Order: sequence, then structure tokens, then C-alpha cells
Amino acid sequence: MKVNGTQYRAVWWADGAVGYIDQRLLPHRFETASAGTTQEVADAITGMGVRGAPTIGVMAAYGLALASLLGEDLESAYRLLDSTRPTAVNLQAGLDAVAPHFGSPDAALEAARSHDEAEVAAAQRIGEFGRELIKDGARISTHCNAGWLAAQDWGTALSPIYKAAEAGLSVHVYVGETRPRLQGTRLTAWELGQNGIAHEVVADGATASLIRRGLVDLVITGADRIAANGDAANKIGTYPLALAAHANGVPFYVAAPLTTIDANVATGDDIPIEQRPEDEVLYADGLTERGESARVRLAPESSSALNPAFDITPAELITGLITDAGIVEASPEGIRRALSS
Amino acid sequence: MKVNGTQYRAVWWADGAVGYIDQRLLPHRFETASAGTTQEVADAITGMGVRGAPTIGVMAAYGLALASLLGEDLESAYRLLDSTRPTAVNLQAGLDAVAPHFGSPDAALEAARSHDEAEVAAAQRIGEFGRELIKDGARISTHCNAGWLAAQDWGTALSPIYKAAEAGLSVHVYVGETRPRLQGTRLTAWELGQNGIAHEVVADGATASLIRRGLVDLVITGADRIAANGDAANKIGTYPLALAAHANGVPFYVAAPLTTIDANVATGDDIPIEQRPEDEVLYADGLTERGESARVRLAPESSSALNPAFDITPAELITGLITDAGIVEASPEGIRRALSS
Repeated sequence: MKVNGTQYRAVWWADGAVGYIDQRLLPHRFETASAGTTQEVADAITGMGVRGAPTIGVMAAYGLALASLLGEDLESAYRLLDSTRPTAVNLQAGLDAVAPHFGSPDAALEAARSHDEAEVAAAQRIGEFGRELIKDGARISTHCNAGWLAAQDWGTALSPIYKAAEAGLSVHVYVGETRPRLQGTRLTAWELGQNGIAHEVVADGATASLIRRGLVDLVITGADRIAANGDAANKIGTYPLALAAHANGVPFYVAAPLTTIDANVATGDDIPIEQRPEDEVLYADGLTERGESARVRLAPESSSALNPAFDITPAELITGLITDAGIVEASPEGIRRALSS
Repeated sequence: MKVNGTQYRAVWWADGAVGYIDQRLLPHRFETASAGTTQEVADAITGMGVRGAPTIGVMAAYGLALASLLGEDLESAYRLLDSTRPTAVNLQAGLDAVAPHFGSPDAALEAARSHDEAEVAAAQRIGEFGRELIKDGARISTHCNAGWLAAQDWGTALSPIYKAAEAGLSVHVYVGETRPRLQGTRLTAWELGQNGIAHEVVADGATASLIRRGLVDLVITGADRIAANGDAANKIGTYPLALAAHANGVPFYVAAPLTTIDANVATGDDIPIEQRPEDEVLYADGLTERGESARVRLAPESSSALNPAFDITPAELITGLITDAGIVEASPEGIRRALSS
């Protein structure tokens, strides 16, 4: 996708380092950065300079290739990169793509590049399959950022929207702001704006009422991990959207490449849920009237917060999974069929 | 309730003016203010210096008494105060309590004071009835602020919690932050902290997952208007909590005085929903590290927002209404019985 006319991906190999768009600075500043050590790659993921399940998988793949180039030890580099975030299974998929080639820096880099290209191709296919679900004039609700910043070049949940717009359809997107980190407001609104797609930001608590009032035709979100039974872990706030869609007969789709499916976990309740620092809830970051970045405290000095980063949407609330292998039923049978085909 | 040891109500008569706690400045600054003209009373409500359905009813009652004292015209003063906010029916209840006595400033003030005392008594009774639903060690979720700032002296949703704590029970409150205006983070967390009640702030999207994980025993919210069939309008984000509670077998109660019931509207869909300025979603207010108040822009410069202030929770998702006349079934029969008793 293009930023001010120049082609970018969220993450790339940059001659002996891993380049990335620092997503913490968006939407107010667009800046690229470079991680030159395995620790810097890990820090970029942990600190959320790079986020989004497929994107952190690509970042980790390049990170492991970098570790190979720097002559590091496979096991400790793998462990360092794997421990950056607990919920997304794509992290392991990226690492596992590179690990067998770790002995040769050239082969390791080649494996990372292949993983990157495979993720781009998967995101494109998700867009093509998902586009079939979108009618002209559709009003679509999404949550968090599952766009090209989160899944190389096209995105997961946003890929069908980009493909529909590319095909000339008119769409309107309701962007859930996605507290506490506001990935909807900061990243999805920015992506859609850069691509000229009509959208409005809504508070997370508001989307359910828009669905009830008949203002939403379709909900599409991404996923960080999908269990063998079709339960999906995704950004906190996804589950109540699925409840509202289900209660009001609105289709609720989860868009993700097959690499997001973890056949080793039986149900969503077995997926580890990352607990993030309470300050994300107690503070907000933005731009002052003078154009300076600032962090403001929202809560009373003495109050604390609870900050689970993901929730589980049970399979029975999911109309279907939009994958790179087509629309898949969110059920043990559907997933078994998709993985074995 | 006390603030730093001194007794306060959210709104009071202050010798020819209406005194109030400026809720826009909390939790970072506690300041009282005074409205000396009917327009200033109206502005305090519209600007949300004073908010919360029962509290704005009391503010409007004192405002109409002030208009009487200033020799204004009843009809225009009533219209000005009635037009400040569209959703809460308590506004009209406060005005209607004073209007018949408008001809005599003393009688008008006396009627406003009676309305105030009746609201305090109602909030206390809500607390006493609601306390029976709370077991020792209960984990209670609430949304927005339905405490003593919103309903004179005790609150609606928080009144049972204050009464339970007063009776020596241990409770833990999950406070939904309530974007976009963050009344949960700013006001409810502050109230609970001032009263030594254990609480954690959570992002609005997170509460549903806490309910699903079995961490919530009871949900209690307030209401801005209740229809004749039991549907309840309340702060945006209430409906998805009710969906989550219902889906997981957790009791969901709405606490409100009988004055919040509007027998003239058949269902929730007939309740007018206030649309508020988009900047509430696009910006956040807080305190910088240097202790200065600041407003920061969250969204890209080119993005807009949709900001409905209330949603409708259908009666079938409401376990019961905690009113000043006892626990009432959220149904046409239950409401008819309560209003006629």
C-alpha cells in the first residue's frame, strides 16, 4: 500500500537490519525505523512499534534471519523473539519458517522473504474471497487494526474492503476506536483515509447500538489466534461486537490467514491472553493543540486498572472465517477440512 | 457524601444562585461553581458541568426557581431548561415539580427543595433495596457514573454498593471507563476512591470478556429514561454489557428512581437519542506529566466520528429494575404495577 504516493510494507529487510513503520507514532507522525540487533527486533514487537498478528510473524522471521547473520545462537534467538507477545500464533509460524535454515544466513534470509511474500499473497487472497461478501453501499463495522499495517500490504479484515473499493464499490466503515491503545482511531482510520475510503470512528461501546439500529450490514474483524474448534482470540472488544451481531442477525466474519489457526489448542479458553500494563487504560496519548505529542492521565491518581489485551469470541457467534483458502466454517469440521486441503 | 471530609451534594441552592460541583474538572480538580442566571443553569447542563439523569432534574428544578426569583417568564424558562439535554426524562420531572408554583418565588424554591430531598430519599431507598442483591465479596460491573454525582447524595447504580460497604460487606467494582467522556474513569473511580471502595477501571470493550470468564457476579447500571415496556436508555455502551450478562447467565440490573420511567413512551425505540459532538471521540482530556490540563487529538486530522450518547437495552435483557419502590420487573406489567402503587 502507498503512503503519500510511496509504496510501503509494515516491515521489510533493510540490508542487514529489519526496517519497519513505527506504528506508535501514527497517525500524527509517519516515521520508519530500523532494528539492527535481535534485541531491537524483540523490543519493537514488545513495545508495539510493530503489531498485528501476521506482521509480527514477518518481523520475527526477519529477526531470526538477522540473528543468523549476526552468528547468534538459534535457541536463544528463537526464545527471545517468541516471548515478545503471547497471544498471536503467527509469531511461531514466522520463526518456524526460518529456523530450519538458521545455519546459513543466506538461506535464513531467503526463508524469511518467502514467509513475507506468502503472507502478502495470503492477505490478497483473503481480500478476494472476502470481497464477495460486500455489496455496493455496504456499511461495515471493524475493530482494532487488521489492515496493511497488521498483515503485510493488504491486511486481513480490511483486505476485502480495499478489494471492494478497488472494484469500484462504495463502502462506509465504522471504525471502533479500540481502547486502550486506540488502534482503530490511530491506525485503521489513518489507513482508510490514506486510501480514500469513507469512515467514521465510534467509541467501542457504540457499535452494538449501531448494529441494533440496523446501521451495520456486516462486521469483519481480524484474529490473533483461532482454536481448533473455531473460537477466535482477537483484540479486546471483539466478543461484544459478535454478541451484538448475533443478537441482531448481522453477519460476523473473522478474517485471518490459515497460519492464524492453531490446531494445537482445542478451544478459545486454552489460548493465553496477554495482560498489558494498566497505564494504557489510565492514560491516553495524542497531539496537543500546539502539535506536540503528549500523554495525559485520565484517571484519579489513586485508581488502578485491569487491562486484558484480547478476548475470545466463541465459534457459534462467528458466521465464517475469511481465510486465504476461502470462506471456512468456524467449526472443528470446517477447520479440519481447511487445514487438510 | 463527603469530599475530603466535607459534606457535598452534586447540586444545591446557594442564596439566589444554583451551586454545583463542576464535574468537567474531576478527577484532577475539585471545584464548585455557581449559576446566577437561568442561562448559566442551562449552560452548566448542556456543557456537562452537571450531568446524571436525577441530578440534572434537580439542577433544572432549582433553575426554574431561580427564573421565578428573577421575575422571568415561565414558558421561556421552562423551554430553555427543558431543551438542554434530550434523553433523560428526569429533567421534565424536576421542571414539572416547580412549574405549578412559579408565580411565587418562595413556593417555587420550596418545591425545588422538596424535589431535591425526594431524589435523595429515592436514591437512599434504591441503595437499600439493591443492597439485598449484593453478597459479601461480590464483584460488580458498572458503567458510566450513576453515583452520588449523578443522583443526589447516594446515586442509583452505586447506591446499593455504598449501602453494602456501609453494612460491612466487601465488594470489588469493575468500572467501565465509558468513552468518549470517560465518566467511569473520571467520576465513578473518583467517587469509589473517595469512599475507600476497591475498584479497577477497564476499557469498555473488556467488560464482556470479564463476564464471560466468570469474574463478574452482578452488573448494575443507571438509566436516563425507561420506557413503559421496560426498555432502558442509558449511556452508550450499556447494551453490549447487557448482551454479555445475558449470554453468560449473570444478573443485569438497572437502578433508577420511578421518576426515570416515562410511561408516555411505549418502547425504547421511541426514546430520543442525543447525538453529541464528534470531537468527544476524536480527542481526550487529561492531565499532563507537569500537572496541566490538556486536550489531545487521538485521530488523524481528516477523520470524523459518530457519537451517539445513549443506547437502548431491551427489557428482555434486564433482570430487574432497582427502584425506590423496590425491585421491579422490566415489563409492561411490572412497570404498571410499580407506577400505580
